[in-house]
Amino acid sequence: MGITTSGSPGKGATTTLLSVVLDRRATESLARQLYLRIRDLTLSGQLTAGTRLPSTRRLAGDLGISRTVTLAAYDQLVVEGYLEARRGSGQYVRALNRTLKTRVRLGTPAKHVAPEADALAPRGRPFDPDAPPSTLFPTRVWARLMGRGWRLDGQAAVGLDQWAGLASLRAAIAEHLRALQGLECTSEHVAITAGNADALQIITRALTSRDAQIWVEDPGHVGARRTLAREGLKVVPVPVDAEGLDITVGRRLAPRARFALVTPSRQFPSGVPLSLSRRTALIDWAHESGAVVIADDYDSELRFSGRPMASLSSLDTRGDAVLTVGSFSKITFPGLRLGYVAGSPSLIDRLARARAREGAPVATGAQPALAEFIGGGGLSKHLRNLRRQITQWRHALTAALRERLGDAVKILPQEVGMHLTITLSDAVTSRLSDIEIAALAAARGLNLDPLSSHAVATPAHQGFLLGYAAWDEARLVAGVEALAHLLEDCDRIPASR
Amino acid sequence: MGITTSGSPGKGATTTLLSVVLDRRATESLARQLYLRIRDLTLSGQLTAGTRLPSTRRLAGDLGISRTVTLAAYDQLVVEGYLEARRGSGQYVRALNRTLKTRVRLGTPAKHVAPEADALAPRGRPFDPDAPPSTLFPTRVWARLMGRGWRLDGQAAVGLDQWAGLASLRAAIAEHLRALQGLECTSEHVAITAGNADALQIITRALTSRDAQIWVEDPGHVGARRTLAREGLKVVPVPVDAEGLDITVGRRLAPRARFALVTPSRQFPSGVPLSLSRRTALIDWAHESGAVVIADDYDSELRFSGRPMASLSSLDTRGDAVLTVGSFSKITFPGLRLGYVAGSPSLIDRLARARAREGAPVATGAQPALAEFIGGGGLSKHLRNLRRQITQWRHALTAALRERLGDAVKILPQEVGMHLTITLSDAVTSRLSDIEIAALAAARGLNLDPLSSHAVATPAHQGFLLGYAAWDEARLVAGVEALAHLLEDCDRIPASR
Repeated sequence: MGITTSGSPGKGATTTLLSVVLDRRATESLARQLYLRIRDLTLSGQLTAGTRLPSTRRLAGDLGISRTVTLAAYDQLVVEGYLEARRGSGQYVRALNRTLKTRVRLGTPAKHVAPEADALAPRGRPFDPDAPPSTLFPTRVWARLMGRGWRLDGQAAVGLDQWAGLASLRAAIAEHLRALQGLECTSEHVAITAGNADALQIITRALTSRDAQIWVEDPGHVGARRTLAREGLKVVPVPVDAEGLDITVGRRLAPRARFALVTPSRQFPSGVPLSLSRRTALIDWAHESGAVVIADDYDSELRFSGRPMASLSSLDTRGDAVLTVGSFSKITFPGLRLGYVAGSPSLIDRLARARAREGAPVATGAQPALAEFIGGGGLSKHLRNLRRQITQWRHALTAALRERLGDAVKILPQEVGMHLTITLSDAVTSRLSDIEIAALAAARGLNLDPLSSHAVATPAHQGFLLGYAAWDEARLVAGVEALAHLLEDCDRIPASR
Repeated sequence: MGITTSGSPGKGATTTLLSVVLDRRATESLARQLYLRIRDLTLSGQLTAGTRLPSTRRLAGDLGISRTVTLAAYDQLVVEGYLEARRGSGQYVRALNRTLKTRVRLGTPAKHVAPEADALAPRGRPFDPDAPPSTLFPTRVWARLMGRGWRLDGQAAVGLDQWAGLASLRAAIAEHLRALQGLECTSEHVAITAGNADALQIITRALTSRDAQIWVEDPGHVGARRTLAREGLKVVPVPVDAEGLDITVGRRLAPRARFALVTPSRQFPSGVPLSLSRRTALIDWAHESGAVVIADDYDSELRFSGRPMASLSSLDTRGDAVLTVGSFSKITFPGLRLGYVAGSPSLIDRLARARAREGAPVATGAQPALAEFIGGGGLSKHLRNLRRQITQWRHALTAALRERLGDAVKILPQEVGMHLTITLSDAVTSRLSDIEIAALAAARGLNLDPLSSHAVATPAHQGFLLGYAAWDEARLVAGVEALAHLLEDCDRIPASR
């Protein structure tokens, strides 16, 4: 199949697409056929990045088809990222599949280099694991609580001495943690944060000097590593195996580390819970060396099955070796930016002092409302609704993955949370890495979070974290469909590994 | 005057104070006499830190005076930081005058080393320049707007795509900046921030890589330097003279700097406005070198007299060399944590993308209410009230300083803002540096912000920034009184410079 271009080849050239042949008797619609032909031309490299396509009107005339057909085909190509529409100027072939082409040409992909951040799909597209279920959030109830909370608590909220957060919210969160995690907790054990990154910042600023070491899980949260490095900590990646963080290796690599950051309930991103023997080994090390364990039991509000293990803080008989961090933004809406650190009153006091030194308290605007939301039962009700709804979405996603992707992926078991972890078969990864697939998927409006991107050492598995809490069944199924198309396209690349 | 102590000397010993002699015929009250005697004993070192004082009842019995007298004297000593009251255990001599003693003993004070941050007085004590006038904030009006704003704007506020902030607030701030600073500004020119530190973070993350250079004013804002250094920028202090930042020196020190951070209206902390010729020289440099000037016209909402100079952005004919930053937390309440960056739409878009990469939007909780507060005229009304009230407080502070401190300090002229800048006479600084005085003052419940602490090179002046926006006349006058006492005490130290 050839194409005709006018002007200089490559950037800025306009194609006529006169060679495209459509079959009016085929079962596939004309729009679908046109979409597939143009997609093939871009994937094969016959249409190069920057090439301008004929207008929908002209192409319709050239091919003798209705403009509705050309519009539908172009729309789909734009949505999937093959084309980009420039206002008043027409449709152009996007440059975003360059990673794929480079891979094909060079044969040796830069396996663990994350794609250009700016090239990533916008946040909030399927399957962004950070996209929260804000559509389920009871905005009207919240609007009422915002007013009510401020009428009750406004004097405190405008004060300058809220370095540990509003007393009402600290008390409500203490009660929440007693009920949820069985922590022995009063408001003195709780400091309010603006979320987990803020918690890591204030903990490191309060309890350490620059160049102190911190164990982090490998693979583990990229954002947390970045935050800690910015704070001047020496991040020591410690491998995760089937029982979670390997304490023996941690002791060997950095016996005198000041901190260890762990996700004990469900290791991020592997999903493995930290075994009981590892939990006691971790606490033993912390007691011996005077280290502080920062435990992030993320998604613990969203348990579907199974029973939680003894929490790290319940194993901490000395009482000052564990700080538990958590955020409410994920289970409410991303702009809430409120979370907590729970720990011994003396540690909490040091965090508040550090906050005062920095001179900037956590924003108090939503603190009174959140106190009311938790204390008045609104959060529990919301969580029940959330669990019911996202369970349905999770089932829909699982079914679609099994049906459309079959053996290409493996779905790991999960008991809590708002994302599935899937790993890719060797047949897929022999052609493209998960990071390369994510870069391609970004151009098609999917936000895939590659497992490899969280690893420092060579990852054991390649795959994706698939968030499912922010979209209904139809969008999840459409997302799986787009992913399936993408993997089919990848199948055309010869295996090279 | 001798004293008797039981137990081991120093920490934990209890004194009897039997040597204290009071004069019943003196014009000074017995309570005042007792207060002065004990104060002298601590200042002279005869009462050492950690020494426990006799109970008010016992001392009253020992000295044959009423317990009301001992209670009043102890209270005053506790308020002024000479003693500390430990619950259920009595009164102890505080260790916080160790800086003064060290100075007297060693003769060569560590002039530019800030005192231990933990030893500072709690935030919000007079004359903390960061303490905002929250008592004047209309909390009830705000409570209503919190509910109303969320009813209007809740759907946007819970969304995931608020990387530049809520559209309603961006539009309201654009209008505010058009009216206030004459900026040509629409919502596309505005991104919401959590305040100025957050603005510096997101600007550097969006527009630069690590190790880029930034000009900062010397003296200048300590917190800003710390934030920039944490972000991995190379901070280049450029001296400030009577016309503000010295552009010629900046060009010599770091001609290819990526940024310059300036406070053009009123240089912080010197109070000097950036002259017009310096403004044009700064913009010329930015245009030549491709640098971005970050302009912080702090306190510009609170102009009492004079006329603002042509803003840097109005001189930026190219339109993309200046980012103006500002915060609303200072003129409302510290927990608001909302501010803005204003600049060209393309720069603002890059900030929003950087925010999306970081994955954490600015908290949206108070954004709808602030949009209503600004757009509905609430902010203007509040600012009128604020200007009227703090003008009174400023007059009270100025009068008290003149009356009680006379030639020991010089009050610099000011046209805007919520703090006075005073410099100390040579007679004072020959004995103690401003940083040492601030450390002593912290023990007496004063929060003095020493000019020297903002300088990198040797400061031209020693003195203090005295905030006056958070206290009524009585507390300001009492604060000046305490400062006067402190300087009188310092007079007893032999001059050594």
